[in-house]
Amino acid sequence: MATVDAESGKAAAVAAEPTPPVSGGRGGFSGADVALRALLFAVTLAGLVVLATAKQTVLFPVPLLGVAVPMPAKFKDSPAFIYLLVALCVTCLYSLLTAVGKLVSGSSASTAKNIFLLLLLDVLYAAVMASATGSAGGVAWIGLKGNSHTRWNKICDAYGNFCRHIGSSVFLSLIASIILVLLAAINAHSLYRRSR
Amino acid sequence: MATVDAESGKAAAVAAEPTPPVSGGRGGFSGADVALRALLFAVTLAGLVVLATAKQTVLFPVPLLGVAVPMPAKFKDSPAFIYLLVALCVTCLYSLLTAVGKLVSGSSASTAKNIFLLLLLDVLYAAVMASATGSAGGVAWIGLKGNSHTRWNKICDAYGNFCRHIGSSVFLSLIASIILVLLAAINAHSLYRRSR
Repeated sequence: MATVDAESGKAAAVAAEPTPPVSGGRGGFSGADVALRALLFAVTLAGLVVLATAKQTVLFPVPLLGVAVPMPAKFKDSPAFIYLLVALCVTCLYSLLTAVGKLVSGSSASTAKNIFLLLLLDVLYAAVMASATGSAGGVAWIGLKGNSHTRWNKICDAYGNFCRHIGSSVFLSLIASIILVLLAAINAHSLYRRSR
Repeated sequence: MATVDAESGKAAAVAAEPTPPVSGGRGGFSGADVALRALLFAVTLAGLVVLATAKQTVLFPVPLLGVAVPMPAKFKDSPAFIYLLVALCVTCLYSLLTAVGKLVSGSSASTAKNIFLLLLLDVLYAAVMASATGSAGGVAWIGLKGNSHTRWNKICDAYGNFCRHIGSSVFLSLIASIILVLLAAINAHSLYRRSR
């Protein structure tokens, strides 16, 4: 009878704890997850500051009148850059909230449901961030190279400082998009390991 | 002894088959997955055709010379539209391959590993498609509205047909991006149901 109890007890233990090696691996990935979220916060905040401070005024001389007209350039001039600012803002807030949430709740909150919900949000934010990066990048490219077919002149030869700000912000947004895809992959891997 | 065997057998059966209700639900989601992939194929193919046929030549009169100069507009004029074409091409191929693969292999191939890999690819393609949509959308918006600050004139008043093609293609790409995010969500849900 003792053998019986031991055996059925063992079986019950196996049923109650189906994937013991996962939790160790999950811990490691959870650390990478929090670190990536902290990095995402830093990158989006930097992108936000760089974009918001993209402002330059250039004096264009008007030979006929003998005066110089100030022509300012700021990120608000293009809807694509406003979209990028909004995307960076919400992603920055999202990364802060999820990183703090993960740190406060610890490993107790890393249930399958929470990982699934985080994965959905990561995918959504990755898509929004990627589209904003593409949109601002497309406009910035015209500013840098111009388009002879449509006679859109490049402006970066005159507005060098402004363009450096915009370019840096687009680059940081690209990094943020890649981090979000990585975060989605990490969460997907966590779910995958639990499902095996 | 017979009772013992029955009990341990029952426990073993529970351990071997941890989530019996999942497979039925998975079948339903797998059908939605294939249907969405077929829709994705149709949408990206339509977007591809509409973008590739975006070509219009407008005659601009030159009053001084008394002649009209033909000015063609085609999607190759902007790197953003070339990027969109490439993104639509690879997504179209990807949707075809995965839809056919799912149909041929049936439910036997829907292992956790395959779902995980498909989820990763879906997220990657969603990000690429979203960035291409944003990029082309940003340039198309300048073509439609112009930008008075940088003196980029709108061209859609002259090239109406060309702009309709580009606009339709960008809209179809947006639909494709949303479908890819939905596919990622469905695969994530499959993994989540298996992990419970």
